[in-house]
Amino acid sequence: MAYELYYWDGIQGRGEFVRLALEDAGAEYIDVSRGAKKDGQGTGAMMKIINSKIEPHIPFAPPFLKDGELIVPHVANILLYLGPKLGLAPKDEGLRYVAHGLQLTIADMVTEVHDTHHPLASGLYYEDQKDAAKRRAKDFIENRVPKFMGYFERVLAQNPQGDTQMIGDTTTYVDLSMFQLVGGLHYAFPHAMKKFGMSYPRVAALHDAVLERPNIAAYVDSERRIPFNESGIFRHYPELDQDA
Amino acid sequence: MAYELYYWDGIQGRGEFVRLALEDAGAEYIDVSRGAKKDGQGTGAMMKIINSKIEPHIPFAPPFLKDGELIVPHVANILLYLGPKLGLAPKDEGLRYVAHGLQLTIADMVTEVHDTHHPLASGLYYEDQKDAAKRRAKDFIENRVPKFMGYFERVLAQNPQGDTQMIGDTTTYVDLSMFQLVGGLHYAFPHAMKKFGMSYPRVAALHDAVLERPNIAAYVDSERRIPFNESGIFRHYPELDQDA
Repeated sequence: MAYELYYWDGIQGRGEFVRLALEDAGAEYIDVSRGAKKDGQGTGAMMKIINSKIEPHIPFAPPFLKDGELIVPHVANILLYLGPKLGLAPKDEGLRYVAHGLQLTIADMVTEVHDTHHPLASGLYYEDQKDAAKRRAKDFIENRVPKFMGYFERVLAQNPQGDTQMIGDTTTYVDLSMFQLVGGLHYAFPHAMKKFGMSYPRVAALHDAVLERPNIAAYVDSERRIPFNESGIFRHYPELDQDA
Repeated sequence: MAYELYYWDGIQGRGEFVRLALEDAGAEYIDVSRGAKKDGQGTGAMMKIINSKIEPHIPFAPPFLKDGELIVPHVANILLYLGPKLGLAPKDEGLRYVAHGLQLTIADMVTEVHDTHHPLASGLYYEDQKDAAKRRAKDFIENRVPKFMGYFERVLAQNPQGDTQMIGDTTTYVDLSMFQLVGGLHYAFPHAMKKFGMSYPRVAALHDAVLERPNIAAYVDSERRIPFNESGIFRHYPELDQDA
């Protein structure tokens, strides 16, 4: 049975990290919110689960995955669940906790990316918190990008199995998520990322290598890939960008 | 062998969610940063792992758990790992993903609590971002607390096994973390939380029930329990508090 992915329609957002794993593995899945109401799909089908008064395991927010009766919420949790089934997790059980830890660090950085344009309230418009956003984005570029990316570069450099994947000796969902994170940062902050490849050569090479994976290359060129836009997590607001 | 918990000395912080599980289960553990340098402990021992140039699986930040050679970072990941070993996870494998999803929602709320006093930059002093903090705290109290706590109340109400635990029919690490979250919010925002028990009766009852667990009661009264303070996640700054 096809996996059902529930996420907001019209944006890559957090759902994209899950889509990349499903696409890379060639797994059958339904992107429910993007489906038609007449097929029992669409955003309404997603909200029905979130607002259900009887569902025993309601998710707090999208994305969540439905596999049969099981509802798995949160990107990192979904990838923890799917990883072994899709052949995108380390075989060693201990390493699966390490991979999950890396994914949670990626999730933390994604939250900080979001907060560059929404530092005061996720329910307020960007325009109503632009001054605070400028301060937060400046700190993000000057301090947080180097902190996170310096760490990811070290993770690659110190992987005993080689610096072409984040963990172990095979490609995992963590590598696919790194691709999305790096791509998103380039979209949102082109000035800040100008010298990215020089500062973080292993991370940059990983991004490029993932893009060459046949299923990822095909997906990125397909209509299924929603372009980055200013409703998602990674938003290009020139006034928030600056040289690193 | 005793588990080794690595976290900043002097604060409950994120480490406390792990401590509560270890304490409730009566597990043997070393709170490494709080130990003596002469025993190979202290904050230096923690920084040595974080800054290691050879360790294959470096953590991004505390807390992390060391169990033999395995390093498990991130609170929710640590609890995912420890839960079954401590008898604090659901027996059913599918439900473990549900429990983990709840824990990740708690983690998201904890990050938002942190950001009430540090909305612009975690590296800046609170005093240098107080105006933004006031706006973010106001939004947190007015919008985010009801959103998260309304959700947790529904999770309890809709648990088919009863509304006295978050998942299944036994106490899990999720319940212990809810205790810490609710206690921390009461410490930080006493005005905002004044009517908490009326608004979220099941969540409030869960908090009180966890406090009556013998090992938790003993721990909270012990010297091992660091008091809440203004260096942690939950900080009581009266100017950020207001009636809900």
